[in-house]
Amino acid sequence: MKIGIMGTGMVGAALGTKLIQIGHEVKMGSRSASNEKAVDWARKNGSRASYGTFADAAAFGELVFNCTAGTVSLAALSSAGSSNLKGKVLVDVANPLDFSKGMPPTLSVCNSDSLGEQIQRALPKVKVVKAFNTMNCKVMVEPSIVPGEHDVFVCGNDVQAKAKVVEIIRSFGWKSIIDLGDITAARGTEMILPIWLRLFGLYQNRPFNFRIARS
Amino acid sequence: MKIGIMGTGMVGAALGTKLIQIGHEVKMGSRSASNEKAVDWARKNGSRASYGTFADAAAFGELVFNCTAGTVSLAALSSAGSSNLKGKVLVDVANPLDFSKGMPPTLSVCNSDSLGEQIQRALPKVKVVKAFNTMNCKVMVEPSIVPGEHDVFVCGNDVQAKAKVVEIIRSFGWKSIIDLGDITAARGTEMILPIWLRLFGLYQNRPFNFRIARS
Repeated sequence: MKIGIMGTGMVGAALGTKLIQIGHEVKMGSRSASNEKAVDWARKNGSRASYGTFADAAAFGELVFNCTAGTVSLAALSSAGSSNLKGKVLVDVANPLDFSKGMPPTLSVCNSDSLGEQIQRALPKVKVVKAFNTMNCKVMVEPSIVPGEHDVFVCGNDVQAKAKVVEIIRSFGWKSIIDLGDITAARGTEMILPIWLRLFGLYQNRPFNFRIARS
Repeated sequence: MKIGIMGTGMVGAALGTKLIQIGHEVKMGSRSASNEKAVDWARKNGSRASYGTFADAAAFGELVFNCTAGTVSLAALSSAGSSNLKGKVLVDVANPLDFSKGMPPTLSVCNSDSLGEQIQRALPKVKVVKAFNTMNCKVMVEPSIVPGEHDVFVCGNDVQAKAKVVEIIRSFGWKSIIDLGDITAARGTEMILPIWLRLFGLYQNRPFNFRIARS
């Protein structure tokens, strides 16, 4: 599949590399047409990897991942152009972490709204699926680094779009995928970030992830 | 130990009953001196169970559980009287769920503050330990109803107070207790409620709990 990745940070690079490894073609997009990190990532990832602007990545992808920082996601998606995204599945991996008031970060949107919902409202013809935002990017692409059973949460309004994203998630090696329902569940998965950040402080470099223990 | 329970709802009743069963004396407090549910609970739980006002329960307990609804906890604790609570450990089990704007509930405080912190600020001479607020009360008192390993989170500023609470939690049968640090971590455990509510909708009456999968 042709996949667009918006964002050149750790998350975009990890997902892009994984998608290349399992056979997809990936274009990494950023604000500029030749972002240094995107160029570097594409050079390391062979002929199926390319780079360009947000609009280039959005136009290229049959499916697009939003891996930009949550506080700039809406601007990045606007720059990508709604016509380039129309009708496509957008996997929103971003978290609205606001570091501007110091540590720990707060959420720039939460409680009665979420970044996932804001993106869905801004792009009503795009099928937004929130996924993967509750874990470190190393865990996203290699779930076995966390011992035992653990879960990835998905939510979104379009059932077929979710099914397509679930298929990709399974192809990464995931066994347990919990569908939380429509995109308003993004409030829940984004608001899990404050405890995630505490746990990250506690476990440092030891990988961890959420598991819903259940019968 | 003599323990005060503030609140006569499901959570207060479940914790009170468990504490009686394992040998403690418990006084359940409410706004009125003879709340019908408190009278009924005490009648069912034998000679070590009693009831009274919030102030009676606070004065009685060497350790006190706040099991009131989060949106009225500060008023209930104020009514209990800071002199009745001074120097004691207060286990805050409440969540600031606001149902006044319809379903799903929002949090009346979150993101840059939490109910746990509000209570600690209102009662600076009380040792507030946030615990148990991330699960159903049936799971609190009988962790084995959820299969596999799963966790209870604690946080608070006073290390000795946390150790005392951890001891009680262990006496309920808990194996894995995660200390998230000071009381500001209550933001994290309270903000986990939106996803908990989604999961509750998904699993209905099947008990579940959070587990942090880790090495």
